[in-house]
Amino acid sequence: MNYPSKILEKAVDAISSLPGIGKKTALRMALHLIYDKNDKASILSSSLSELRNGVKFCSICHSISDENVCAICSTSSRNKRLLCIVENVRDMMAIEDTGSFVGLYHILGGLISPLEGVSPSDLNIDSLLSRLEKNEVEEIIMAISPTIDGDTTTFYISKKISHLNLKMTSIARGVSFGGELEYADEFTLGRSISARLPYKLGQ
Amino acid sequence: MNYPSKILEKAVDAISSLPGIGKKTALRMALHLIYDKNDKASILSSSLSELRNGVKFCSICHSISDENVCAICSTSSRNKRLLCIVENVRDMMAIEDTGSFVGLYHILGGLISPLEGVSPSDLNIDSLLSRLEKNEVEEIIMAISPTIDGDTTTFYISKKISHLNLKMTSIARGVSFGGELEYADEFTLGRSISARLPYKLGQ
Repeated sequence: MNYPSKILEKAVDAISSLPGIGKKTALRMALHLIYDKNDKASILSSSLSELRNGVKFCSICHSISDENVCAICSTSSRNKRLLCIVENVRDMMAIEDTGSFVGLYHILGGLISPLEGVSPSDLNIDSLLSRLEKNEVEEIIMAISPTIDGDTTTFYISKKISHLNLKMTSIARGVSFGGELEYADEFTLGRSISARLPYKLGQ
Repeated sequence: MNYPSKILEKAVDAISSLPGIGKKTALRMALHLIYDKNDKASILSSSLSELRNGVKFCSICHSISDENVCAICSTSSRNKRLLCIVENVRDMMAIEDTGSFVGLYHILGGLISPLEGVSPSDLNIDSLLSRLEKNEVEEIIMAISPTIDGDTTTFYISKKISHLNLKMTSIARGVSFGGELEYADEFTLGRSISARLPYKLGQ
């Protein structure tokens, strides 16, 4: 593409480095910002700079935070005996949005993946173990994707905590609410039959 | 959505103000920037700030430029007798990318649209007329979309320049190269038959 301005070209290159954004979309965005009357470009520029310099990571659960300890870890209203293990911040936010979980979180920052060269030492597993050794947690809930990497990670953690007297559970899998049985994949449907639950009125 | 950090929320709001970006995509991008090792966030932030403060508009053709007069208008190698009228910078870049045009451009900055409240005075039509009155241009090529607004704009300009001795042409419309006849819309196909051209070997 021939750009009429070097500054525009630089901005298009920077925008298209974002995931899922190609050169054409980046150009559309850059031109939108140039002609925008509300000065979106300055707001975006300053908030991105703040994002880079101002965001902290919680020293307990490794979530993104404005302080050294995040809002969830520092509140007294959450159940400290329940610990939910998630892969990343997005998964934590998804669970938090359901409003069904009152315990604390621990963010691994990835999954063990020999193929991609991610070993247990690259993840927040050591800090998880030292958290668990304080004997405050009674149950850990593995909310990890059921992929090969996810299963490997869950297995590794289960081995590492086997000496502790801990209940370890995994989030339920099955046919989603509103999902049609005929469109569910065989593995999910099979598992939802073998893990069937007693029928209760109102559930 | 519950955000673990106010700074993250502010960044997601700013990113999702871009065209075609929703909150979920913006969150994915913000997290990508937080965890990125190459400091993309700072590069993006500085290039957006530069985009806002550094970009100029060419005083002749109204294109985006790094100088007061753009590279195309200031070069002596282009044919100053040919002037191509386009709606916006993206259309100009698309034509420039074909490499088939050696003349100059004039960017209207929009189309006349009574429905959206865009009148001729909102566009760069006055500067076009004063450019044409210098008698350097011999032919103006209307490269405007064949919509109601586009046709209105072309008609308005044709009336405004009727007193000048100018050749006015419009870019050819028809079935695209590689396009199958059966999938072309009736209007395009009809027009490509009525505007048929003599067959020449090698074209």
